[in-house]
Amino acid sequence: MKQLTDQRRSGCPISFTLDIVGDKWTLLVLRDLLLKDKRYYREFLEGGENIATNILADRLKRLETEGLLTKEQDPNNRKQVIYQPTERSLALLPVLIEAAYWGATHDPNTAAPRDFVRSTRQKRDAMIAEIRKRFSSIRRGTARQTSK
Amino acid sequence: MKQLTDQRRSGCPISFTLDIVGDKWTLLVLRDLLLKDKRYYREFLEGGENIATNILADRLKRLETEGLLTKEQDPNNRKQVIYQPTERSLALLPVLIEAAYWGATHDPNTAAPRDFVRSTRQKRDAMIAEIRKRFSSIRRGTARQTSK
Repeated sequence: MKQLTDQRRSGCPISFTLDIVGDKWTLLVLRDLLLKDKRYYREFLEGGENIATNILADRLKRLETEGLLTKEQDPNNRKQVIYQPTERSLALLPVLIEAAYWGATHDPNTAAPRDFVRSTRQKRDAMIAEIRKRFSSIRRGTARQTSK
Repeated sequence: MKQLTDQRRSGCPISFTLDIVGDKWTLLVLRDLLLKDKRYYREFLEGGENIATNILADRLKRLETEGLLTKEQDPNNRKQVIYQPTERSLALLPVLIEAAYWGATHDPNTAAPRDFVRSTRQKRDAMIAEIRKRFSSIRRGTARQTSK
């Protein structure tokens, strides 16, 4: 699969990022992967926004091609495929959290808890560190599915 | 024009944000508006990524519908239309800056100056305050086009 970045439009760093994750669904898949601990195809499919199965398959393949996730045989169930985040996708957490903050403060019908809105601004860096810590334990072999 | 938010997929704040700005072109138009001081249709058209004129017209209309910019007769040239950012779009600056940071640190061929990469992380809040300050002077009537 050709890397999306082959089709780049300029050397602008914002444009580079958007060429990879600048569509409605890609960042939602990353949200599920990074913030909601989804690891399996079916879990992404049930993410809450009714993503079509062909779109999901396409986005997972692109994210793998771009090095934003890995796709492996699940060590706990060899019939199943497990998706895991990479350092490259973890580095997108600030983008996701800022997008969440904007949505939570501008959507009058937001499902985001008031606490989230109140605390995100100040606690953003701590929140990112906390999520990263969770993933470093996954990388050390204490994967989520074994602690279930 | 129907608001994009009518087609919302869930109450998730990230999903809300992406329903409005989650496509390749919308955030590039906002980049030009907020970070590059573009104010006129032709300037957006020449933004560097070869946006098609019908896509640009569509995105500007959507951004106006969503309250992310205003479209007015240019006080300095009544034949011309001028676009201006709103408080609602200024609040998206952190998303743009985080996207720029990710692109600048992950694109081996980035056009972003090394200084930008080095300083963004620590100076992010100061950078946002500086840009906001520039726009508050615009709102006080000392618009960019008059100081040219």
